[in-house]
Amino acid sequence: MHQKIEEKMIDYLENLAQCGRTANDGVTRRLYDVFWCDAQQMLTTLCKNAGLDVCHDKVGNLFGRRQGSNPLAKSILSGSHLDTVIDGGKLDGIYGVISALIAIEMLYLEYGQPDKTIELIAFAEEESSRFDYGFWGSKSFLELADLREVSALVDDEGISFLEAMEFALKGLDDIGNRSYKEYAAFIEVHIEQGQILEKSQKRIGVVEQIVGLVCYEFLLKGVSNHAGTTRMDERADAMLTYAEIVVSVTAYAKKEGFVLTFGKIKCTPNSSNIIAGEVFATIDMRAPNTQKLAEYAQHVEKIIYTLSKNNNTTATIHKWLNQAAQKFDTTLIETLTLICEKKQIPYKKMPSSAGHDSQIIAPYIPTAMIFVPSIKGISHSPKEATHIKDLVVGVEVLMELLYELAYK
Amino acid sequence: MHQKIEEKMIDYLENLAQCGRTANDGVTRRLYDVFWCDAQQMLTTLCKNAGLDVCHDKVGNLFGRRQGSNPLAKSILSGSHLDTVIDGGKLDGIYGVISALIAIEMLYLEYGQPDKTIELIAFAEEESSRFDYGFWGSKSFLELADLREVSALVDDEGISFLEAMEFALKGLDDIGNRSYKEYAAFIEVHIEQGQILEKSQKRIGVVEQIVGLVCYEFLLKGVSNHAGTTRMDERADAMLTYAEIVVSVTAYAKKEGFVLTFGKIKCTPNSSNIIAGEVFATIDMRAPNTQKLAEYAQHVEKIIYTLSKNNNTTATIHKWLNQAAQKFDTTLIETLTLICEKKQIPYKKMPSSAGHDSQIIAPYIPTAMIFVPSIKGISHSPKEATHIKDLVVGVEVLMELLYELAYK
Repeated sequence: MHQKIEEKMIDYLENLAQCGRTANDGVTRRLYDVFWCDAQQMLTTLCKNAGLDVCHDKVGNLFGRRQGSNPLAKSILSGSHLDTVIDGGKLDGIYGVISALIAIEMLYLEYGQPDKTIELIAFAEEESSRFDYGFWGSKSFLELADLREVSALVDDEGISFLEAMEFALKGLDDIGNRSYKEYAAFIEVHIEQGQILEKSQKRIGVVEQIVGLVCYEFLLKGVSNHAGTTRMDERADAMLTYAEIVVSVTAYAKKEGFVLTFGKIKCTPNSSNIIAGEVFATIDMRAPNTQKLAEYAQHVEKIIYTLSKNNNTTATIHKWLNQAAQKFDTTLIETLTLICEKKQIPYKKMPSSAGHDSQIIAPYIPTAMIFVPSIKGISHSPKEATHIKDLVVGVEVLMELLYELAYK
Repeated sequence: MHQKIEEKMIDYLENLAQCGRTANDGVTRRLYDVFWCDAQQMLTTLCKNAGLDVCHDKVGNLFGRRQGSNPLAKSILSGSHLDTVIDGGKLDGIYGVISALIAIEMLYLEYGQPDKTIELIAFAEEESSRFDYGFWGSKSFLELADLREVSALVDDEGISFLEAMEFALKGLDDIGNRSYKEYAAFIEVHIEQGQILEKSQKRIGVVEQIVGLVCYEFLLKGVSNHAGTTRMDERADAMLTYAEIVVSVTAYAKKEGFVLTFGKIKCTPNSSNIIAGEVFATIDMRAPNTQKLAEYAQHVEKIIYTLSKNNNTTATIHKWLNQAAQKFDTTLIETLTLICEKKQIPYKKMPSSAGHDSQIIAPYIPTAMIFVPSIKGISHSPKEATHIKDLVVGVEVLMELLYELAYK
């Protein structure tokens, strides 16, 4: 069976990686773009070949259903997201979707029809790599998002969210009704995207919680002026302020032991011989303790304001995401640890420092997450990789859990 | 006469500011774009109304000629550039062109035909705001540039230099032959773009030299990775390296007393939840002493390499411009100071920290530059401004010099 899972895994991953492959051998598959549409089609075909009933909800979340024999029981849901970051890898998100597909297939081959319905889900969007909105798929599934929230959003090319959505969904003729209330459990398999498992030589991570996340956008305003004729002591240089903030805030994060990233910047006018008049930038900061994270965030804001003032520049700060840490279902966590022990798979209970659809689902459906190791911890990069044996173990653990939940 | 110059100045400046006016009330008029074409047409009309013979050379430098009575004498040339930076002001470049036009007009009204031919020039390009090439106008005029150098260049929209050039020049039907060898002197009037004149309460700057200029592009390579799961001590963050370089190099420039600017940055993948894999950026550094500047540049390179290495990132540095300081013609400088003294205009001999067409011309034609004060030193910005009385004084000094050179 191990061999069969491995073959399917390689085959399915390769097929999906074609949907948005980049020049760097990475994948860029953003919400509602043509590659996203390709992936929808590919996944629909794979699900149908596996004998699943496929439908989409009205935002393009894909469901692949293996009907159970007990019509009264709630269903079991497993999957992850279909989209990727810009020039991301071949595993983030889609590995969890493919794991669910293979697990459902293999369980059927082994044990026939389940008692409870098992369903695969491919969330339309999680990464916010096209529009300034994340978890669109899982939030829509839970009826937490609606079109009014996204109607003003446009992507980098000026295409509006609604235009993009209409373009992508117009070809879908299998719209079905799905309510999150139909489900008894949600399980997401995912690559770790860090080095905890690799360094501790474990093959499975049983995720106990997702860390808290605070996201900032901030705008520094100085005075754009001539690079030659403006004396150093007469400048209001937004770029210098930015650089001082990066250095100072990063040192603070290292001292306090939380992770923090300055990943995005836009400088105006962005010309080599003009002093930066404006710098727009972002901060992404995460910590397991929600209360501590709030304290860190407050201090970071203080640093930004202080350094801006010292450089004759001004700062406007917008905290656009403030997400508390989210714990997962203790019964499911317990079941997963028992499975790993029974199968003698080296595992580790751990937090996730990355955000996942699971954290959105967890307050509404009992939820668990299974991690497999990432080689060198690299993710959100074309170099993202996991040993094939570990990808297979992830599916095997998922199969055991689905068996416990849907067949017993 | 003062009143007449003022009226013409306001009128002409306003007309030209319409060619590329931006939402911020600035001007964006880049080489060979539609606004550049508008400005060519506008200037041609103004020159013809003033009785000048207009022609263009094959790159679009515009010449407006007032024929002198002595066919054997070399001509006197005055002007500046037609293009602007992105969202620049209404004076940089075009003020020097308009000053030449008004001076030639007023001299003719006052004294009739000159002995020597006086000619206005509007250089096609100086700012390198569209393509990575500066001084295209003056270098082409001197036969220092040719099409092979620019044939590979494309602008931000992917339009090639040659396409853009063909688009802009196809309508011009007045191509003439001009050789730099025909000219006995070149005088450029320009706004100071700094605060030296304003702070010392002078109205005219007699420019003695242009400072040396070194321009770098550099690329920092780290590893793009997940913002949540990558521990701070495991990162190779190109943005952190960049920030440390900005802070350290800026401190060095302040200590040594030269000007240095980090004006342009491009981060890849530039996503808020991904550690920066690459940062591409620029440095613009200037100093009056060519030898000193070379030493500063060497030290800056050392800082870049050292900090890159400390952060597990790598640096590739490209010094794309290395321009020695350029002195102007001592006889012309002397004549200008005598004019200011005679007319009792408060003036100052000074260096220019900005680059100008004059520095390209100076090795080939005896050259002088006249500065007028910039309010608060602001330039390369929609807020760029000079008091109208000072704009007029600039023209009056130019008229005196042209009179000395072409009428006596």
